[in-house]
Amino acid sequence: MLFTSSEFAERLANVRRRMEAQGLSALLVTDPANLNYLTGYNAWSFYTPQVLFVPLAGDMLFFLRAMDAQGAFRTAWLPPENIIGYPESFVHRPHLHPFDWVGEALRERDLVEPNRVGLEMDSQFFSPKAYRALQTGLPEWDFVDAVELVNWVRVIKTDAEIAKMRQAALVCELAMTTAVEHVRVGVRQCDAAAAISQAQIAGTPEVGGDYTAIVPMLPTGEEADTPHLTWNDQPFEAGQAVIVELAGAHHRYHVPMARTIVLGQPSDQLARLADAINDGLSSVLDLVRPGVGTRDLAEAWNMTLARYGLEKPSRIGYSIGLAYPPDWGERTVSLRGEDDTVLQENMTFHLIGGMWMENFGCELSESIRVTATGVETFTNFPRRLLTPNS
Amino acid sequence: MLFTSSEFAERLANVRRRMEAQGLSALLVTDPANLNYLTGYNAWSFYTPQVLFVPLAGDMLFFLRAMDAQGAFRTAWLPPENIIGYPESFVHRPHLHPFDWVGEALRERDLVEPNRVGLEMDSQFFSPKAYRALQTGLPEWDFVDAVELVNWVRVIKTDAEIAKMRQAALVCELAMTTAVEHVRVGVRQCDAAAAISQAQIAGTPEVGGDYTAIVPMLPTGEEADTPHLTWNDQPFEAGQAVIVELAGAHHRYHVPMARTIVLGQPSDQLARLADAINDGLSSVLDLVRPGVGTRDLAEAWNMTLARYGLEKPSRIGYSIGLAYPPDWGERTVSLRGEDDTVLQENMTFHLIGGMWMENFGCELSESIRVTATGVETFTNFPRRLLTPNS
Repeated sequence: MLFTSSEFAERLANVRRRMEAQGLSALLVTDPANLNYLTGYNAWSFYTPQVLFVPLAGDMLFFLRAMDAQGAFRTAWLPPENIIGYPESFVHRPHLHPFDWVGEALRERDLVEPNRVGLEMDSQFFSPKAYRALQTGLPEWDFVDAVELVNWVRVIKTDAEIAKMRQAALVCELAMTTAVEHVRVGVRQCDAAAAISQAQIAGTPEVGGDYTAIVPMLPTGEEADTPHLTWNDQPFEAGQAVIVELAGAHHRYHVPMARTIVLGQPSDQLARLADAINDGLSSVLDLVRPGVGTRDLAEAWNMTLARYGLEKPSRIGYSIGLAYPPDWGERTVSLRGEDDTVLQENMTFHLIGGMWMENFGCELSESIRVTATGVETFTNFPRRLLTPNS
Repeated sequence: MLFTSSEFAERLANVRRRMEAQGLSALLVTDPANLNYLTGYNAWSFYTPQVLFVPLAGDMLFFLRAMDAQGAFRTAWLPPENIIGYPESFVHRPHLHPFDWVGEALRERDLVEPNRVGLEMDSQFFSPKAYRALQTGLPEWDFVDAVELVNWVRVIKTDAEIAKMRQAALVCELAMTTAVEHVRVGVRQCDAAAAISQAQIAGTPEVGGDYTAIVPMLPTGEEADTPHLTWNDQPFEAGQAVIVELAGAHHRYHVPMARTIVLGQPSDQLARLADAINDGLSSVLDLVRPGVGTRDLAEAWNMTLARYGLEKPSRIGYSIGLAYPPDWGERTVSLRGEDDTVLQENMTFHLIGGMWMENFGCELSESIRVTATGVETFTNFPRRLLTPNS
């Protein structure tokens, strides 16, 4: 186990407190990061349906494909009798769904007062077909949207989680160092991505790396006006600016970082944009401490950017931590004007200054922790336009 | 564009033929592989909602997050006016969903007879919340499950797609060669995974690699009784058997392969299991040609395994091709008794002999194409238990 049993017990207690506050008698958890958070379970099995039944009191029950259930005890702390495999004959069938079977299995157990059972209605890997299977199979149950209930518990990290993130930060620095070494004129984009991936997964001699929830993204040259391009087979060219957005991961905890590498002299407009982003980030970092609202951070960013005649319609950051593909964000706190969150100690964010203009773009970022009195940046890496020799 | 416009036109025509056969006036496509198949669009943007509106006649409309819509023309062939960005204020909000906005945008256009609009009810990255937003926003539309409609069109590959898969096969062979070089006693699992990932993404000098829909899986030693474990930070130990399941990918087309590497002498039971799997695979390969049923393949496998006193409850293969995380399977044809498919030329499968016993396991596989008269194996790699010196 990567965390103590008392830590897992505390996580569950926090989830149940929130369930009570939301008036839920049970919760069905489908998000792989939430499954890991509550049970420790870790495998690339989330492409077939999985669900953890969490009652307000009593045992949790974990349903997954039979071949995965067989070995789930290797990573999950649950007793084997609470890990239940559904039959292979329900996998990828046009008119069946594994949750048809799960619905019946839950019904047979007669486990819960069927009032207000929470579903993760916007969880990755929970499909409408799965939702309808539960509705049909458990017609007495009153399903409601739990609205990222477990994700919101995850927003405040324990010290043990912070320790994992500090280890992920070491891997992140190594991966970005590797990027700066390999993003060179004449090197194919795929070769640079390969070197970055190698560094991410090997990690350091003390801290092995894990796969990241998002692969390295390398929007290059004119294509850097859009954030989520990966790579192609073409060599980098002189004069191009290359956005590198990547993370280090350790035991599924993520610390992301974005930098922009210029293969030559930056244009005036790019240099000015980088200055604006850097100033904007500094103005936010200066404010971070418990008690400050996320919208105050967004306001500071906007005021700084406005001095450069710029504005950014997208959020400037989001909560990070435990993650699986396709996203290292937690889908809870966003740093933006529409958010109501007030900062508390051990919240962790990817503070991302990404500006995508017409035919060019720039990203600089910091992954941060809210400390008792201010801010800790997880990584220590020059925050400016980088060149291959810098 | 990675494919000709006539190929894209033919794909759309095939999808529309199937829509007519299913009585659909329109289809809403959310699966990233299906989006790529119809438009060429390729970016790691699928962690926020995306949907392609495909009417029976007239223009397709592609809705995605504004920051991604801005550059979508770089990979998608759609005219820019048919690529529509939803506002950032709909991203990751507890009581809003981007498809609230999309529903209104579709309604305003008054585009379609609202009778029988197909949804991909079991698509990855299409959540119940997204589904309910469409239902609420477009109450006159009669939504029905399109049941993997586009995926079924994808089952038969064009020659251009087969060419991509042959390139992916070169990357796959390289990645498995790398695995055999790096899975050694004393090497940390993460270091072997890092080397494999490097090989996968760099590819060959002629064929750049792409990220694979599933990361390398390395169930090791006793943990090889469960198929979807990734890696940890521990070194491989003498005597362990290591299952390596990986793919090569090129331009999002995948060719997977599984092998089992033994760090020493295989136990008698493992050697016997590998023989059984190999015989089983051979008996299937001997049968493959157009006109044969997938259930005949499963039957041949079962008969062979039975001679060893073994049985396998899970399918022995599935359709492969274009893919995004979290799965390189197409969720259509499965090679098993419950399947009704009859083989046709240019169907492509990952034929996987995976047996997970108690405290050990073994996998051997071939990625194959059904030819006019028989079978083509995409890769050429020894199909037996491997040792570091083999």
